[in-house]
Formats: sequence, C-alpha cells, structure tokens
Amino acid sequence: MTTQTVIQAMADKVLAGDRRALAQAITLIESGRDDHRIKALALLDLLQNSNREALRLGLSGTPGVGKSTFIESFGMMLVAQGLKVAVLAIDPSSARTGGSILGDKTRMERLTREPNAYIRPSPSQTELGGVARRTREAAMLCEAAGYDIILIETVGVGQSETVVAQMCDVFTLLLAPAGGDELQGVKRGIMEMADLILINKADGDLAAAAQRTCADYAGALHLLRKRAQDPDGFPKAACVSALQDTGLPEAWEDIQHLVTWRKSQGLFVKTRADQARYWFAQDIRNGFLAQLERDPYKQKIIDLAEKVGQGDMSPSRAAQLALASLRSAPINDANT
Amino acid sequence: MTTQTVIQAMADKVLAGDRRALAQAITLIESGRDDHRIKALALLDLLQNSNREALRLGLSGTPGVGKSTFIESFGMMLVAQGLKVAVLAIDPSSARTGGSILGDKTRMERLTREPNAYIRPSPSQTELGGVARRTREAAMLCEAAGYDIILIETVGVGQSETVVAQMCDVFTLLLAPAGGDELQGVKRGIMEMADLILINKADGDLAAAAQRTCADYAGALHLLRKRAQDPDGFPKAACVSALQDTGLPEAWEDIQHLVTWRKSQGLFVKTRADQARYWFAQDIRNGFLAQLERDPYKQKIIDLAEKVGQGDMSPSRAAQLALASLRSAPINDANT
Repeated sequence: MTTQTVIQAMADKVLAGDRRALAQAITLIESGRDDHRIKALALLDLLQNSNREALRLGLSGTPGVGKSTFIESFGMMLVAQGLKVAVLAIDPSSARTGGSILGDKTRMERLTREPNAYIRPSPSQTELGGVARRTREAAMLCEAAGYDIILIETVGVGQSETVVAQMCDVFTLLLAPAGGDELQGVKRGIMEMADLILINKADGDLAAAAQRTCADYAGALHLLRKRAQDPDGFPKAACVSALQDTGLPEAWEDIQHLVTWRKSQGLFVKTRADQARYWFAQDIRNGFLAQLERDPYKQKIIDLAEKVGQGDMSPSRAAQLALASLRSAPINDANT
Repeated sequence: MTTQTVIQAMADKVLAGDRRALAQAITLIESGRDDHRIKALALLDLLQNSNREALRLGLSGTPGVGKSTFIESFGMMLVAQGLKVAVLAIDPSSARTGGSILGDKTRMERLTREPNAYIRPSPSQTELGGVARRTREAAMLCEAAGYDIILIETVGVGQSETVVAQMCDVFTLLLAPAGGDELQGVKRGIMEMADLILINKADGDLAAAAQRTCADYAGALHLLRKRAQDPDGFPKAACVSALQDTGLPEAWEDIQHLVTWRKSQGLFVKTRADQARYWFAQDIRNGFLAQLERDPYKQKIIDLAEKVGQGDMSPSRAAQLALASLRSAPINDANT
C-alpha cells in the first residue's frame, strides 16, 4: 500500500469509531519523527471536515481536589445517557519528568472498562507547547471518531490552564472546600477563564465548608467584569460530590445551557475560530524558533554567546551576526 | 566625512563625556530606522571596550511611593560626593501610550540642573522587549561616557522589573509604609529579585508605620532561600526618607558593601556575563520573530489564518505551509 492509501485507511477507521485505529492515530500525531509528522498532517487534512462536533470540556484542579473521582463519576453519568466520552490530559509535570496524570488508569477503574469511554494519558514532551499541540490534535481525532464529549483535564499549576482553556468550549475549575483565606489561592487570571467553578467533596464533614466556599466564589465571580460569552448567571459556582454523585446532573445542565446559549449567539463558532487562529500563530512561532536549536545555527550561537560572556562583543552585535547567519535558514517542514 | 569617521567622532566625544554627543548617541540607538541601526551597532562596537565601569543600580516602585523624590535626593547626595550620575527609565506604560515616567523632568528639578547628572526619559516603543534593548544600550553609552552610577528606574507593574533586574548590578525595591495586609501586594517573584528593600516616607506621621513595614519585610526576606550572590545580612530591608534625606547614606553604604563583596567573590563579573548572554539570546529571539511581521510572510500568514478561522484547514497544516514559505527567509541585519 502507498502511504496515501495507509493514511486514508486509518482515517476511514477513525471515522468508523475504531478505538484501535484512534489510538494508533494519536500515537502518530504524538511522534516526534519527521516522517511521522508528514503522515500526521495528511491524516489531519483528511479528518478536518468530518462535520462532527464534540463538546470540548476543559477541567482544571490542583492535586487532591478529587479530579480523577470527578472525571470517573461525571464520565459514567454521561455514558449512562448514551454519550461517548473521551478523556485527554495535559500534564505540565510530564514536560519535566515524562510522568503522566492518567498513566495510572486504575484511578478511573469503571470508566476505563466502558466501551463508550476512551482515556488517553498526557503525551510526554519536553515543553508545554508541544504537549498542547498534540492534545489539541488528539481532541480533533476524538471528535472525528464520533465522541460526543471530550474532557481535557489539567493540573492547576502554572500555564497549563491557559493552554486547556484555549482548546475547550467550556472551562471548568474544580476546587476543594476551604477556609476563606484560601480563596486567594486561585489566581485571578485562572478564575477569569472559568465558566463554571465546582466545589467538590460537598459531602460528610466537608459539606458545610463546601457551601461556604461556594458562596465565597459566587461572590468573587460577581465582582468580575461580565464577559461577552456569558449568559445571565454565568460564570457560576456550585457544589458537587463526585463521591456521592450529587450535583453532577445539575453541572451538566449548566454546561448544556451555556453551550446552547453561546450557539444561539454565534459565539460558539466564533470562539472555535479564534482558538484555531491562536494555535496557528503559536505553531508558526514555535516552529520558527525551533530553527535556532539546530546546527549549524546552534553552534554559531554558542560561539557568539561565548564572546558576549567575555565582553568581547555587545549582545546587540552578536545577535545581528547570529541573525545574519540565519539569512538562508532552511525551515524543516516536518517539524512545524 | 565617511560614515565610519562620523561614528568614530561620535564615539570619541561620548568617551570625552560630551553630554550633547551622549544625547545624540542615545537618540541613534533608539531609532527604528535600518540605516541608523547599522550606525548604532558600529558605535557600540567602538565603545564596547571602554574599560570604564559604572555601577548599574535598578530601582523599582509603584506610583505614589516617592520614586522621583528618592532619585532626586539620592542622586544629589551622590553628585555631592563628586560622582557622576545618569538616570534612565523603563516605563512599561510607554509601550502602550508613548508616555514616559521621566518625561516631566520638573519632578527632579535640582538634579536636572546638575552638570554631573544626566536624565534621560524612557524610550517609547511598541513593546517591552524593544524598550529593554534600547535602555540596556543607553546604559552602556553612559558607562562609556564616564558616569559612575547609572540609576535605571521602572514602575513596579508587570514584567518590567525583571527586565531592569537583568541589566543591573544591584536591584532596589522602593516601597511605601503600609499595613500588614499589603505585604502581599509585592509579588514573591519581585521580592526574590531585590537586593535591598527601602521603605520610603519614614518621616512625620508615617514614621511608625514605615518601621513596622520594614520589620515585616525583613521577616519576609528572612524566609526566602539564601542566594549565592548575597553576603551575610542581605537581601535587607531598611527605612529611608527621601523628603528629609535620612537613611540615604546608609542605603548607599549597603549598596557599596554588596558590590565590594560580590567583586571579591567574582560574582560581579559573572553576573554581568550571564546578563550579556541573556540579552544576546533575547535579541536573537526577537529579531528572528520580527521576520513574521513583514511581507511577504505577513500577508501569507494573514491568508492562512483566514482559512484556519473558517475551518478549511487545520492550524497544524497551515503552520506547516507558512513555515515552508519562510524557507528562504531573508533576515534583515539592520533590524536585529
């Protein structure tokens, strides 16, 4: 078979909802090899207009907040409604350690066994930009494979929330019950991204604390400037218990209400277009800068940095010489 | 005269301490014109090994903290000791509005009239990276012109402190007396950059509050991990009154002690080398990315973004096509 035939066959299987083909396709887009990248782009071209639309739901929460339990309970509820659910992850720590949030699938034992659920660990990458592109492309593959909901989770540290929010239709922040002081633990920037703040563990001894925390956040959200993408009452804060399955149907109703409203206003499509253009710009930037990490430029830059460090040349002059040596820089297509 | 002769003459005048030539030289390095940039780099080459060393002192503080009054009092004290003082500024707001902290020189009326003081407003630029390079180069020109102290001030908002800290030998944070709650108003990252925290307005009604604030910060600094570049007792917090000229000689002694110790440990030279390499890397990055803002790439990128926004092409494919069109990207030397 020619390469084109192989890729077409893979695309057909993904469109037919073949789980194994989906897994292979995601592995292909995650590969760092140049020849794999060419195939991955061809595959994405074939699936670009599948005319299928999944709801992309972002979920952020710090470790200990009960994220795995929430995804399991929420995912099981959706599956019970006849929906197909895919779970992806962006783990900023995997950029450093190669580890992965979802590496241990035993944390979502029931959901893992569901034929209508697909769980994929975070790709390991050296930098967040790379993880972001691969997860965004994996979401697109899951959408083409006929999944209705794509849950993209991330640990609430650093920049990964921004990355997830930029590839989701709805962004949910999961928090644990806490004292008033800890309200400041959530960065303003992250709170401003949230469409829905869910206080988990609203059960047992923590039920009262969860109610208080929820009221605190509802008050804080009220102080933020209204965004164009919000219907009345949003962003909102609510209590859930992933352990006791309470509040989950209500959260799902809220999400659906939000999506329906945004679609009616033309905002759903607009946000997706904005996001696609954002990622296009990011990809160009990253691909362009990647040239600097390759020989012969890399060595040239190291040599010039040496002179700069010794005070023999101004940083400005050295940068000008380095850029001059990039004059006919060949851009490697496969690594865009 | 040939261009080379003109530049050599300018360099000679700068080295001779000619204020008018210095002002012209700074205007040259601030220019965005390509032909000016070529001359500016030639000038920097000639001044690179002037063998003169000024102390570069960074100063950050939010509006209202009394920064202008401090610079005036501190600068007058240094001038009275026979030292030559240059004042530069990085104003992040100038990137947006074209305004400038030091535009109103009347705020430093006495210092402005001193023959041994040179005050230069922040260059107006469209982005912080551009302001940073120009201010760093202006500091180098002032150093070559024989100034002993170069005060580089910035408003304490956003990323401009990092930029200033990366071009200074000693970084000072100026604060106003405040209640305990406001301790959290200083970002941890900025506090970690500070070598010296000075609580200003330690006079009149605010004297007691300043002492408390100083004690609070001294305690907070104590909690931070010790840095390699700190002698015992540093970073430290102290009270000053720019209005009543108290605490300023002590602050100057602290700064000199810090510099002497760092020089004895080889850390002064090492930090300068690290900073030069840092700016070299930043300049390459910015110069490289600037290509994307120019035709024919700019138009190509706009066209592809349109397709991406309409969903006709994946962001990944569009980025690959854009990068392919950059294959033989000519790098314009003059704009590094």
